[in-house]
Parts: sequence; C-alpha cells; structure tokens
Amino acid sequence: MLKNKKPNIPLPSLSRLLTVYRLLEQLEKDGIASVSSSEIGKILGYKPDSIRKDVSFLGEVGNFGGGYEVQKLKRHISTKLELEKKRKTCIVGLGRLGTAILNYDDLLRNGFIVVAGFDSNINKLETINTALELFPAYEIAEIVRRKEIEIGVIAVPARSAQETADRLMEGGIKGIINFSPVAIEVKNSVMIRNIDLLGECMLLSTLLTFEENALR
Amino acid sequence: MLKNKKPNIPLPSLSRLLTVYRLLEQLEKDGIASVSSSEIGKILGYKPDSIRKDVSFLGEVGNFGGGYEVQKLKRHISTKLELEKKRKTCIVGLGRLGTAILNYDDLLRNGFIVVAGFDSNINKLETINTALELFPAYEIAEIVRRKEIEIGVIAVPARSAQETADRLMEGGIKGIINFSPVAIEVKNSVMIRNIDLLGECMLLSTLLTFEENALR
Repeated sequence: MLKNKKPNIPLPSLSRLLTVYRLLEQLEKDGIASVSSSEIGKILGYKPDSIRKDVSFLGEVGNFGGGYEVQKLKRHISTKLELEKKRKTCIVGLGRLGTAILNYDDLLRNGFIVVAGFDSNINKLETINTALELFPAYEIAEIVRRKEIEIGVIAVPARSAQETADRLMEGGIKGIINFSPVAIEVKNSVMIRNIDLLGECMLLSTLLTFEENALR
Repeated sequence: MLKNKKPNIPLPSLSRLLTVYRLLEQLEKDGIASVSSSEIGKILGYKPDSIRKDVSFLGEVGNFGGGYEVQKLKRHISTKLELEKKRKTCIVGLGRLGTAILNYDDLLRNGFIVVAGFDSNINKLETINTALELFPAYEIAEIVRRKEIEIGVIAVPARSAQETADRLMEGGIKGIINFSPVAIEVKNSVMIRNIDLLGECMLLSTLLTFEENALR
C-alpha cells in the first residue's frame, strides 16, 4: 500500500489504471465513444473484474451495464489521479538515449515539462540541436534548485549514476527515473523508478542463446 | 532456473552479469585495467559476494586476490554468454519511440542488427529518414520469414500490440521486446521482455502526487 491518505490505491491497481488511461486516450483518438470492462480487459490482458475494482478505487463513475463512456472515464481517472499536473523535469546525460528522451513527445503530453538538460561533456552541449537550456553536469544542484525541477531523468553511464543522483538530491529533486543499469541509493523522501532498456534487450538475446544451446 | 543445459545460470545472476559486462566496457573505455569485486559491487549496488558467485557460474577466470583484469573478465563474460552473437531485429511502430530505438546505437553495439522497420501508416514510411528498409505492417509475417528476423521490437499503441505480436509469430519470430503497455500473449517457444517506459514515468509522477497529498 502507498503511504498516502487519499486515494489509497495499491500499486498494481494504480499501474493498471494508468495503462487504462492511456488506452482510453487512444480509443478517444480513434473516435470510440464507449467501452466495456471486458473489452478493456481483452486488449490489456487484465481480468474485467480487476478493472472494475481498480476503477472503483476512484469512487463513482457512470457505468451502464458493464460499459464506460470513454471520455468520461478518461476524465475521471485524470481528475482523481491529478494527471493534468505538470512536473518540471530535467535530463542528465545527453547521449543517444538522453537526447531521444528529450524529444519523446509522449512524456511531454503526459505531465512532464523538460526544462533542462545536463552533460558532463561541455563540448557535446554545443553540438545538440534543441530549444532546451543545456548545462554542464557540475551545475545540476544549482539549476535544479533555481528552476524548482521536480523530476530528474538519469541517462548517464553506470559509473556516474550515483553521483548524478546525489547532485539531483542536493538540488532538492523529488523523483528520479533511472535509465542506467545501476541500483541507485536515494533518500527516503525521493521516489525512484528504474528502466534498464539495453539490459532487457541483452537479457532477451542471451535467453534465446541458452534456449538454442539447450535444443542443440 | 533456465531450461538450458549449459551454462545453467539463474535469471538474477544472468541479469547482473550483463550489467557487470556493460560496466567493464565502460571501464575499458576509460583505460582502467583492473577492478575488484567490491569496487564493482559498490558501483552497481550489488554485494561483492554475489558478483564473485555470478562470475563463478561461468567457470574459471583469472582472479588475483579479489581483483579482475577488466579486459579479461569482459572477454570471459562475452565468450561464455555468446554476446558476440548478432541477432536480426525489426521494429514495428515508427512513432517517436520506434524511431528513437531505430537509432539507438547501444543496441547495435550489443548484438542487435536492425534490418527492417514497419508501420501501418504507409504515408509515414515515406517521411522517415533512414537507411533502413521500411515496410507496411501487413507485410510483417512475410518479411520476418524472408529475412530470417529473430527479434521483434513492438512500439505500437496498446490496441495493436497483440495483433503485431501475432504477425511477428506467424513469421517465426523467436523473441519480442514489448514497449507497449499491454500484456501480450505469446507461444511457449517465444521469449518476451516488457518495457513500459511512459508507464513508469507516469507512475512516478502519480506516486509523487500521492505523497504530496498525504503531507498536505
């Protein structure tokens, strides 16, 4: 359980609700007006029951015989989870991955405003084509504090990840998204989510190799 | 445990070994010749003991008083896990995320050769600037079969994810990396890894909101 008072939603339910929200966005774009919990369940691979239960954590929403109005449910989830809230975000490490995230529209559409980029390589900062303000990594704490940045995206190599997190925390960061393959230690008050993109890909490839060798 | 005969390595160990491998790449680039298991442990947030144990799954490697030669250990891991193996890969869904993955150098350096891209929007195919061969989505099964593509990256919206997976499997795909937020059903023989990038970011933001509301 989360240590919040309202709404008190278990993490798996919260995670599913966010996925449902994104599906509803898609359905709305496609001009679909209503959807049942079993249709949602079929598309997302959840049980219809658990969707109804997840939605019920958010209080009453119009539900006619197992069906939801797409726009209404979407707005309901957005309001209850305060998804319209925009959070100032910075990206540290402007290699291939970092610059891709810099330009990742879906983030911008879903509550993140990227306000700064950092890299330890000052020469690199000059070569990146972006409207964003870029700074050398040693200024992280100062800029995070001055711009009141809430979320830091770490896209630096493994050995610089903890130092980057320390600088972000020195500046008062509230949450970290860690794309480095390293386990980062953070203060209790800081939220962290880890996404190891390359690691997952390499793991898949290695698992395939093992399969092949086993069948040989 | 994996259902392979050799080497029989538990999944968490395998995952750590791949992370150690990437750290060693980095250390080698930085001109560092040797490293101890406690140094590795400190950087990656693992216990030195578990690193030594993980490495021992791969058989004997020169270890002088707790230290490893960077190049030697890197080569050892690469040989034993067959990381030099190149796998033909395709990317389905050429939105922001898909095209970012298309250009993600680290994948290319680590065993993936992207040989085809697919999108259901034929007009979009003409606007993407890449040396890669691009095809409409309805040709997935045929192209996967003809080019002997082993790994499919799914970067399509939620509601098209299962259909995409079905087409990839029809073409004989061996592994799927699923960037859509949806749980995909695959045949027993197909390996799948899920990476929900936007979902993790939105979850972090929502958890922060809950924290703030709880403190209010």
